[in-house]
Amino acid sequence: MTLNATASANEPAAPIRDGGFVRFRLDVTYDGTDFSGWARQPGLRTVCGVLEEAISTVLRRPVQLTVAGRTDAGVHASGQVAHMDLPDDLDESDRLVRRLARFLPPDVRVTAITPVPVEFDARFSAIRRHYEYRITTARYGAEPLRARDTVSVPKALDLDAMRAASHALLGLHDFAAFCRRREGATTVRDLQRFDWVRSDEDSVRSGGGDGEILTAYVSADAFCWSMVRSLVGAVLAVGEGRRTVDWTAALLQERERSSSVLVAPAHGLSLVKVDYPANEDLASRNAETREVRSLPGGCC
Amino acid sequence: MTLNATASANEPAAPIRDGGFVRFRLDVTYDGTDFSGWARQPGLRTVCGVLEEAISTVLRRPVQLTVAGRTDAGVHASGQVAHMDLPDDLDESDRLVRRLARFLPPDVRVTAITPVPVEFDARFSAIRRHYEYRITTARYGAEPLRARDTVSVPKALDLDAMRAASHALLGLHDFAAFCRRREGATTVRDLQRFDWVRSDEDSVRSGGGDGEILTAYVSADAFCWSMVRSLVGAVLAVGEGRRTVDWTAALLQERERSSSVLVAPAHGLSLVKVDYPANEDLASRNAETREVRSLPGGCC
Repeated sequence: MTLNATASANEPAAPIRDGGFVRFRLDVTYDGTDFSGWARQPGLRTVCGVLEEAISTVLRRPVQLTVAGRTDAGVHASGQVAHMDLPDDLDESDRLVRRLARFLPPDVRVTAITPVPVEFDARFSAIRRHYEYRITTARYGAEPLRARDTVSVPKALDLDAMRAASHALLGLHDFAAFCRRREGATTVRDLQRFDWVRSDEDSVRSGGGDGEILTAYVSADAFCWSMVRSLVGAVLAVGEGRRTVDWTAALLQERERSSSVLVAPAHGLSLVKVDYPANEDLASRNAETREVRSLPGGCC
Repeated sequence: MTLNATASANEPAAPIRDGGFVRFRLDVTYDGTDFSGWARQPGLRTVCGVLEEAISTVLRRPVQLTVAGRTDAGVHASGQVAHMDLPDDLDESDRLVRRLARFLPPDVRVTAITPVPVEFDARFSAIRRHYEYRITTARYGAEPLRARDTVSVPKALDLDAMRAASHALLGLHDFAAFCRRREGATTVRDLQRFDWVRSDEDSVRSGGGDGEILTAYVSADAFCWSMVRSLVGAVLAVGEGRRTVDWTAALLQERERSSSVLVAPAHGLSLVKVDYPANEDLASRNAETREVRSLPGGCC
């Protein structure tokens, strides 16, 4: 049995084409509240650990997952993607989805399992990650049923200023000021979307009449460690009037993590979608990604 | 100090107008998962218990709440309404909302506190209660961040049949077959809305591509104990093909609780809104309600 799911810097860039295994894409969603993040850590409850254990038990064979975005402790995902290799075809991947639904705890779900070309790599084939960050400004805090993924900022926020400060960051830049340092990893990223959308759904529902939900939509080719939460933290400082609108653009000139940027709380953040190229473009995409981004411990 | 918040059958129908107190309406929202329902019970964590204790502590005076809908254990509310009497005016009810936000646990929020006429009675003045019941048919179960208020029914459901079976129940009927018996309480109710709306938000978000969210919208002048969950349970039996479409209407002929009606799980249910008449119509509404509905322990 050949298990080759975990890519590392020392492996050849070309995807494995033989060895008699079949590669599967897994779509995964989780409530990050009670997980110590995605990545396996000894003695801690992690999404990867819980999933690998459940799938290995159900299939009665060891399984290793490679993931698109290694989310931190407390961060959620509605559109996480992973892949795994199995030595033979699954009779019914539909049936495995059902079996896992009964076997997994309610805070993590595998929503789909799909056979993919061996060139598909959940991490290196990804061309874009989409995150959302959810804030409420209501005086009374977050709606209880959304308290797990909504951060309470009970203040008047200047949405126009926040939008301007966000848009100033769009494009290909060195986001060093917003990234926790990882040895050898680049912090140059292409920020493709950073929008804020206001809705007053909660105040309408509860009759509270105050406060609103602000959702940040943040998309890039990839993100460094803690980058989304730092982007949100910086823009919140502008929204609260503690910084001027042009502050975020000025941060792009810095070459290392800025201590003046506060990292916004983890629980407002969700990975909602990962984009991949068409099957015929997978191989070239993988080679490109490995070239550009340094390893190991790179940023997802 | 006069505290007269709890109405009982032996009290006069006319609302109290003097005694030097001011009446306040409270808008309340909660995640019912970790509560043993609304009503105070010795040794149990209940919404009313937690709220009365928090408000009494913050205001440094005993407070008693009267509620529109006494939800069962596990049932949620985004639009619950209660009232309380205080011996004098609150300087700033806005400030109390903020103080309670810090003092209350995250699974219950007081979203607004508003002075109201003394004729306003959260329970007896209410003219309509609106509930929602949330189901997912996805094979993988409920999305983790909505697992607390979404019931998993991983089966093909016949939505047309469910709609027909629901609409057949609309109007003024004796809903005895759907109600847990309470001595002396009428089971005649006016069911004004019982609709099902389909959305595929989750499958779109997760890329799962299977399953859909079905939300029942259920409104009546008032509901008996366990009535909404019994209505949903009966209609689900039709949707799964275990009963024919005309079964629900036939149940209206029964004069006592039907053992063939399964009560749907509590956690899918939320009280979303309570309607009240205009201030000038409060007194007449109260008298009417007390006349029609038997007490004590009546149904909210």
